Amino acid sequence: MKQKRFILDEKEIPTHWFNMQAVMPNKPMPILNPATREALKPEDLYPIFCEECSKQELDQTNEWIPIPEAVREQYASYRSTPLVRAYELEKALGTPAHIYFKNESVSPSGSHKLNSALAQAYYAKMQGVTNITTETGAGQWGGSLSYAAQKFGLECAVYMVKSSFNQKPYRRSIMQTFGAAITPSPSMSTRAGKDLLTINPNDQGSLGCAISEAIELALSTPNCKYTLGSVLNHVSLHQTVIGLEAEKQMEMAGEYPDMVIACFGGGSNFSGIAFPFMRHNIQKGKKTRFIAAEPSACPKLTRGKFEYDFGDEAGLTPLLPMYTLGHSFKPATIHAGGLRYHGAGVILSQLMKDGFMEAQDFPQTETFKAGVLFARTEGIIPAPESCHAIAATIKEALKCKESGEAKTILFCLSGHGFVDMGSYDRYFTGEISDFNLSNEEIAKFIESADKLNK
Amino acid sequence: MKQKRFILDEKEIPTHWFNMQAVMPNKPMPILNPATREALKPEDLYPIFCEECSKQELDQTNEWIPIPEAVREQYASYRSTPLVRAYELEKALGTPAHIYFKNESVSPSGSHKLNSALAQAYYAKMQGVTNITTETGAGQWGGSLSYAAQKFGLECAVYMVKSSFNQKPYRRSIMQTFGAAITPSPSMSTRAGKDLLTINPNDQGSLGCAISEAIELALSTPNCKYTLGSVLNHVSLHQTVIGLEAEKQMEMAGEYPDMVIACFGGGSNFSGIAFPFMRHNIQKGKKTRFIAAEPSACPKLTRGKFEYDFGDEAGLTPLLPMYTLGHSFKPATIHAGGLRYHGAGVILSQLMKDGFMEAQDFPQTETFKAGVLFARTEGIIPAPESCHAIAATIKEALKCKESGEAKTILFCLSGHGFVDMGSYDRYFTGEISDFNLSNEEIAKFIESADKLNK
Repeated sequence: MKQKRFILDEKEIPTHWFNMQAVMPNKPMPILNPATREALKPEDLYPIFCEECSKQELDQTNEWIPIPEAVREQYASYRSTPLVRAYELEKALGTPAHIYFKNESVSPSGSHKLNSALAQAYYAKMQGVTNITTETGAGQWGGSLSYAAQKFGLECAVYMVKSSFNQKPYRRSIMQTFGAAITPSPSMSTRAGKDLLTINPNDQGSLGCAISEAIELALSTPNCKYTLGSVLNHVSLHQTVIGLEAEKQMEMAGEYPDMVIACFGGGSNFSGIAFPFMRHNIQKGKKTRFIAAEPSACPKLTRGKFEYDFGDEAGLTPLLPMYTLGHSFKPATIHAGGLRYHGAGVILSQLMKDGFMEAQDFPQTETFKAGVLFARTEGIIPAPESCHAIAATIKEALKCKESGEAKTILFCLSGHGFVDMGSYDRYFTGEISDFNLSNEEIAKFIESADKLNK
Repeated sequence: MKQKRFILDEKEIPTHWFNMQAVMPNKPMPILNPATREALKPEDLYPIFCEECSKQELDQTNEWIPIPEAVREQYASYRSTPLVRAYELEKALGTPAHIYFKNESVSPSGSHKLNSALAQAYYAKMQGVTNITTETGAGQWGGSLSYAAQKFGLECAVYMVKSSFNQKPYRRSIMQTFGAAITPSPSMSTRAGKDLLTINPNDQGSLGCAISEAIELALSTPNCKYTLGSVLNHVSLHQTVIGLEAEKQMEMAGEYPDMVIACFGGGSNFSGIAFPFMRHNIQKGKKTRFIAAEPSACPKLTRGKFEYDFGDEAGLTPLLPMYTLGHSFKPATIHAGGLRYHGAGVILSQLMKDGFMEAQDFPQTETFKAGVLFARTEGIIPAPESCHAIAATIKEALKCKESGEAKTILFCLSGHGFVDMGSYDRYFTGEISDFNLSNEEIAKFIESADKLNK
């Protein structure tokens, strides 16, 4: 019997995260205060984020950041996550490629998001914070933060986009089971929410509004900090535990990836699996390809523009140098809710600009088709977000079939789809459509960012 | 950092199942043909079940049954399942007990049921069968069989109790994603279904009717066999892979269980974790206690009677010597749908009668309370069925706290609750009630079995 799954001993769980910023040939451009256009310092972030996370956000020097022992102990309840050779998927495709996946779906919250939630909750606790808050759309991040808060004895308040609150009751229940307080957004608990509800009592909410409500709560509550599950540099940092483990596990399998593939929303999952391998391209001359798989309905890397833009729709955040579709971009309501974000993280955008990574976009019907094949061959029903990475993997594996090359492909399975079965139902009944964006539509949205760069 | 999870190398996945029948001091009484009262031979089962499973059902001789290599290869995609030391649950309870759980929720279908589904599908395929069929209530077994059929290239038809079909759409979607055809039962596809629907077009179905429909399909379709997910001896046999792994993993942890605990419906999960350890009580004089945790609403072991009874409501099966509440028993609609069965498997009933195991019953609110504590401490949201094992574990761990004894408790986490979040919702909103059965009610139901024993 050929070995299929590779798992590390608990003592081999990484002791440090890898800080990509420290090794980049071109450092990311500074994050700017939109009023003064001055580069942000860590202190500028302290009112909203924990101090430690704020420092990590702007650290361009230290290559290795120690993982606190208390966080590592929490990691040990689900890490190392398995690295799996997808023999049955290979067989179904008839490809000579060797396909591996890193299975992050085994975490308590069902996705990779917990890797950063535990770190952020821990740093908050250490700083004397008692309450943390965040927004959630699809619910993966909210579920992860709820669990992390529970582990470190913090109160957790999640603003959940009202349409998701109603459409994804299981996600809400998961957060409640982990002990968090969930408020549908917009709500009457903040000025931002009230303003919207007094104009339209039936407002179904948006991620932009939920962010505003969570930040307002953090700013107006003693000992309360805000947290974010993607886009930011310190989130990417925490996620590198994925790739660092995968590196050791690929060694166990006796292989090194020719391609590393992940889905791409704000970039946290992609960073996690890619950065530890990408450092070898920079430092050791390896030639691995890094492929971000994004939805055609939200193609920030394939069709966006690199410039300064706001991180949120309302324009409350600092200005970030990034690939963006414009902060006014309104993505279609695809089922991969976690990939519906207009911009890419700052580090990732610089790496994309400098040619260290590439991107491909996929219509959602193709991603569900890929997800069903994966479920039937490898036995894990993937989250709609993860289906994008699978679609890209299948595409590359079929190229190998044509060329006859036995390339090694590693992709990240970011989460499972057990609470997304409604989306699969709609795929089977043919109720899922693809969304084609014209160049004119995209150009119109990007204008909202263009204005900030004049 | 203390080691928390114990995982076996792939080569240590068991090569044989353990056949409890071979070592029992008192063999189970024969299964009888209800018309002739003669003991059943394997051939009598061939029209419905595969030949190999029929032989295993009545095998009282061979202690070790080889696991076919093709089944073992499929096991390797999720086995060994982790054995976990529940440090955080221990801490929350303040108990000196050492609590371990065997996590069967990591399988493709989310529960232990797949261990037998893969074996049954494999034997069917080897015999030249092309189609397999079954019934499902809660959906755990149907999902497992759907996946197993997919792996061995069989068509799979599942009759799903109509009320579940409508109330548990996610379970239905999981089966569909794995490629099965799902029919709400009663249906117009069988005589049994038609008879009911012509009387009452709104009949919401029952497990009894779904069994009848599946058996009718198997009998009337060329190359089609019926399968069952619990109760039967061959199902218990396949599940022993759980306990055999756990035995090696407990060795890795340097401990041996003073108590082994599992939830109890028909007995497949309990057999799986308990039998491999129970053989040491019989053969080596070990003194481990084996505790079956059943719902107060369906207390076959704690309040049932040992006698011959039918395995189904309609009286289509052979007569089984077992602890039963009577085949006419109508359990309340508790959320642990997988535990709503009137009888206990034949081997288990004999062992219970002979004092090798004990049973405790729990009201469902207590089990959900236990499940929430487990989710918050150990990070896995348990299936409502598994919550019964957790409730029993907590009860025993608190006894250790009182007595100051550091006993070692091992329980089986049979499945996760990601698709049962609706039940948790209702628990949180106080919509879940307990069901108290009077002695008179129970006696009335048991009469349906008493009549068969005169």
